[in-house]
Amino acid sequence: MNKIEGLIAAPFAPFDNKGEVVYDKIPAYFDLLSKNKIAGAFINGSTGEGVSLSQKEKAKITEMWAAQKPKNNELKIINLVGGTSFVECIETAKHSEEAGVDAIAILAPYYFKPGNAVQLAEFCAKIAEAVPQMPVYFYHIPVLTGCYVPMFDFLKAAAPTIPNLAGIKFTHEDFMDFQTCLNFENGKFDMLWGRDENLLSALVLGVRGGVGSTYNYAAPLYYRLIEAFDKGNLPQTRNLQQQSIDMIRLLGKYGGIATGKAFMKYIDFDCGEFRLPIKNMTAESFEEFKKDVKALDMENLFSVL
Amino acid sequence: MNKIEGLIAAPFAPFDNKGEVVYDKIPAYFDLLSKNKIAGAFINGSTGEGVSLSQKEKAKITEMWAAQKPKNNELKIINLVGGTSFVECIETAKHSEEAGVDAIAILAPYYFKPGNAVQLAEFCAKIAEAVPQMPVYFYHIPVLTGCYVPMFDFLKAAAPTIPNLAGIKFTHEDFMDFQTCLNFENGKFDMLWGRDENLLSALVLGVRGGVGSTYNYAAPLYYRLIEAFDKGNLPQTRNLQQQSIDMIRLLGKYGGIATGKAFMKYIDFDCGEFRLPIKNMTAESFEEFKKDVKALDMENLFSVL
Amino acid sequence: MNKIEGLIAAPFAPFDNKGEVVYDKIPAYFDLLSKNKIAGAFINGSTGEGVSLSQKEKAKITEMWAAQKPKNNELKIINLVGGTSFVECIETAKHSEEAGVDAIAILAPYYFKPGNAVQLAEFCAKIAEAVPQMPVYFYHIPVLTGCYVPMFDFLKAAAPTIPNLAGIKFTHEDFMDFQTCLNFENGKFDMLWGRDENLLSALVLGVRGGVGSTYNYAAPLYYRLIEAFDKGNLPQTRNLQQQSIDMIRLLGKYGGIATGKAFMKYIDFDCGEFRLPIKNMTAESFEEFKKDVKALDMENLFSVL
Amino acid sequence: MNKIEGLIAAPFAPFDNKGEVVYDKIPAYFDLLSKNKIAGAFINGSTGEGVSLSQKEKAKITEMWAAQKPKNNELKIINLVGGTSFVECIETAKHSEEAGVDAIAILAPYYFKPGNAVQLAEFCAKIAEAVPQMPVYFYHIPVLTGCYVPMFDFLKAAAPTIPNLAGIKFTHEDFMDFQTCLNFENGKFDMLWGRDENLLSALVLGVRGGVGSTYNYAAPLYYRLIEAFDKGNLPQTRNLQQQSIDMIRLLGKYGGIATGKAFMKYIDFDCGEFRLPIKNMTAESFEEFKKDVKALDMENLFSVL
Repeated sequence: MNKIEGLIAAPFAPFDNKGEVVYDKIPAYFDLLSKNKIAGAFINGSTGEGVSLSQKEKAKITEMWAAQKPKNNELKIINLVGGTSFVECIETAKHSEEAGVDAIAILAPYYFKPGNAVQLAEFCAKIAEAVPQMPVYFYHIPVLTGCYVPMFDFLKAAAPTIPNLAGIKFTHEDFMDFQTCLNFENGKFDMLWGRDENLLSALVLGVRGGVGSTYNYAAPLYYRLIEAFDKGNLPQTRNLQQQSIDMIRLLGKYGGIATGKAFMKYIDFDCGEFRLPIKNMTAESFEEFKKDVKALDMENLFSVL
Repeated sequence: MNKIEGLIAAPFAPFDNKGEVVYDKIPAYFDLLSKNKIAGAFINGSTGEGVSLSQKEKAKITEMWAAQKPKNNELKIINLVGGTSFVECIETAKHSEEAGVDAIAILAPYYFKPGNAVQLAEFCAKIAEAVPQMPVYFYHIPVLTGCYVPMFDFLKAAAPTIPNLAGIKFTHEDFMDFQTCLNFENGKFDMLWGRDENLLSALVLGVRGGVGSTYNYAAPLYYRLIEAFDKGNLPQTRNLQQQSIDMIRLLGKYGGIATGKAFMKYIDFDCGEFRLPIKNMTAESFEEFKKDVKALDMENLFSVL
Repeated sequence: MNKIEGLIAAPFAPFDNKGEVVYDKIPAYFDLLSKNKIAGAFINGSTGEGVSLSQKEKAKITEMWAAQKPKNNELKIINLVGGTSFVECIETAKHSEEAGVDAIAILAPYYFKPGNAVQLAEFCAKIAEAVPQMPVYFYHIPVLTGCYVPMFDFLKAAAPTIPNLAGIKFTHEDFMDFQTCLNFENGKFDMLWGRDENLLSALVLGVRGGVGSTYNYAAPLYYRLIEAFDKGNLPQTRNLQQQSIDMIRLLGKYGGIATGKAFMKYIDFDCGEFRLPIKNMTAESFEEFKKDVKALDMENLFSVL
Repeated sequence: MNKIEGLIAAPFAPFDNKGEVVYDKIPAYFDLLSKNKIAGAFINGSTGEGVSLSQKEKAKITEMWAAQKPKNNELKIINLVGGTSFVECIETAKHSEEAGVDAIAILAPYYFKPGNAVQLAEFCAKIAEAVPQMPVYFYHIPVLTGCYVPMFDFLKAAAPTIPNLAGIKFTHEDFMDFQTCLNFENGKFDMLWGRDENLLSALVLGVRGGVGSTYNYAAPLYYRLIEAFDKGNLPQTRNLQQQSIDMIRLLGKYGGIATGKAFMKYIDFDCGEFRLPIKNMTAESFEEFKKDVKALDMENLFSVL
């Protein structure tokens, strides 16, 4: 698989109002991303509440996303097999391959934390070697996993031992580590930037792909940003990044990750609420939220259905 | 179920040298605990590597432990249904009930962390209400889960909403919070102390039960400690606690939790190694470790087969 | 100097309503402690806002406290020379000696943090060797200094290199580390427990002295607790510790350390407010606070003027 | 004072081999910076070991730096008055003004931490209002102070209350917060980027000035980087940032901040060693270090004497 260029959305898990997965919403979700030129879908990740789903639910979601591929083979499907048991991760990895996704991603185990890069690489190798034909990404998000192993050290340990390692989804603000990984072995690995609010600071280092949750509903904003950057129009690029920040600031104001599903509702693609332990917005807050979103004055920057 | 008095061991998961669970070792494990007057087994916990097992493996381990109960009904089996998905926790809780364990325990979700006591209680209630006849413990171990909600706040939120809440396994050094929970609603809840190295400091506050990993292999040490305390022999009690500390210090020296299985090997009840991402002792280190254990000069304080 | 037995208060810095130190209040403060059988005063510490005072203010406060000694030589004065510059700490240490205090205490530097016990011991040795005749305590309070070096490791490094090391004021909930230090070299060092809310859990380990802020205003509570403990009356001891906890919980409710000065006002020994960056209670909050204190129903447990 | 454009070095404190300040080295230090086109000197900061100096030493260092100004008035002197006592900070601020520095900087108090932006702004205002004619910078370095208040919140609180607030030295990797501050009130404040290893990711956001320790000895590297960026030559810019990273990685390898003084020795401007509690390189390590520096192959990128 080549490196992924462009925006990779991390889809939300679509729930009904009883909190059950609505698998039938996935075809339309795929079309939404496809229509907005999204280059990939990183499913069952943090945004997708992979950790709040059962293995069975994750498997069915995976199958449903993989089944959409004939409609647009350019839209790559990466499945996060994340978990704390490598035994279960291997099951999920094999199932992902059978289902036909393009790649899998592995998360650092987040209960017992690996003490160093070698242990982390050994954990990942166990899973990767079970699906030797599949490209494997590592998903680095220390704020949630508690595993702060530098990715440069991880690559030094994993590059020689995991032949199917494809790259890293890097969701951490250590740009020194990130840039070093970008340049590791002549840029061999596919480094995907995972902080939408800092995309510009990563683009300037040479990255060409990003994974994020706001690409679900505001893809045009970021594609304009990338276009302006490629044209060397820095003032416009900065303005667009600041608009992204103003939008993302609402997540802070309204309580965090669950606000993403409020944005989806705002663009008329209702995915329900987040499961516990995530707290959702009240109906009253949602009305206030809508006013705040309107005040951002960025209507033409949201994804279109 | 009454409050549990005495030592509750958190059994190790028995693996063979390929890392597969040896279910057939569980009957002998039950006998080991029983012979050493252990009051309960807290299975699939941190020590039991619950998070490193698959759902299927956990289910089979649960069945095996529950099946031993006829041999000694006083030895209570508590199964940790811990996980980050309440859907899967409910499945495990129901299976635990069918299998015949005495109680279940719930862990704070450790990827997305509950923001406050109310959210934590709501998460637990979801699971507890699926098995309304089962006593339910909360397992408080913030150093691993990252959930630092005070247990006093949790009890205030959970006592009125979770009728089958039985108590808390408290593995955290906040003695102020612990004592307040002990005295909550006239001592209604079964508070189980979870730090073997500080048992004495908890006993003095009035606790009567503890859950720990070193009770697997050094039960006599702690029963003597409790006996000395009950007799008011403080100098002896302190000596015994210091011996426990000297023993536990070897865990720090030899790399942490995996050292527990080295102690099991030392008392001739080999449970194999820990699964990744936990690092195990090398064979060389084990030889050095054995010398260190011998130097502790506490042969008659280890559990007997 | 012998080990200190009993309660050591950490006096508040007395300010007027313009935030200036009222040195003339110190004689009465000494009398207050003396009358309530306090065994020592740990001045210029966290409670005493040492870090918020200028060097000159600290020096004058030290002189004033030392000047009270003729009234009661049993009330030991320990001066925290804490700071991040050992050059300035040495100046303060020498001045402390000249002023006539009984001992000094050293804090871990809290901007650049020592990487290990050896570096910490070297830093302390620099200061201690400038006043070789003075007993020196180390003040361990990692939650404020960010220096989490275990005290057992510190003692191993410092015992052979700092001949005038007298002991440790231990304000951290690591009872395993604390007990090991208590027993270090046959109990050579004077270990002073620094968490009032857990005094009972430390007493049971054999400690005979404690340093705290609530001993300023609630000494009788703790002396009764110690007396009950010494008599083996555990139920009463636990009740008294729970009363201490209920009192201390008001610090959490009313915003932290500044609540201590509200307690001083409550017992009619007004020390003014805390300096910035500490936030003080509003006048309205203080009225509510007084009601809460009255509801504790512990009038005869407060210190008497 | 206008915004500062270009590189601001944070000078090391020059010590002799007994650890005493060598004030007479400062004129040559000023010339070194001047010759390498450095736009400012941020003295008594983290690199300058302000916290490890006595008040008197800091005052004398300040006077010495200020006295060099006639030689090059374009080289601005900013003095960090940092400390935990605002009383002492005010003394230092007034002395700085008398000595003739161009601006002062204030650090968040790092023992008692401000609970929110308003408290932090109140603390800073106390000091700033004592020198109303002086431009005042806030120095944001949460990894050392433990004060993680977002700077956007700080500006909202401080902009209306501190008329002489000039800007922020921002040493933290939160680019979202940084960019928002850059754009705050139409770019009113002078935002100085404080992470040399990420300068490029800040330049792209529009910043024009940076404060750092490596600008003491590798100014040409960064001026070339800025020049390449301004010309739109991104490949060269990235290479230069990667060279900066490779150089900075040696700080990690050789134990941290003290490595900076080894670099100074390498360029033949010996500033002695760091004071305790910072650990210095051994003579053996220094020989190995020199080989590593040579292997970087960046001779023409170091500052020239």
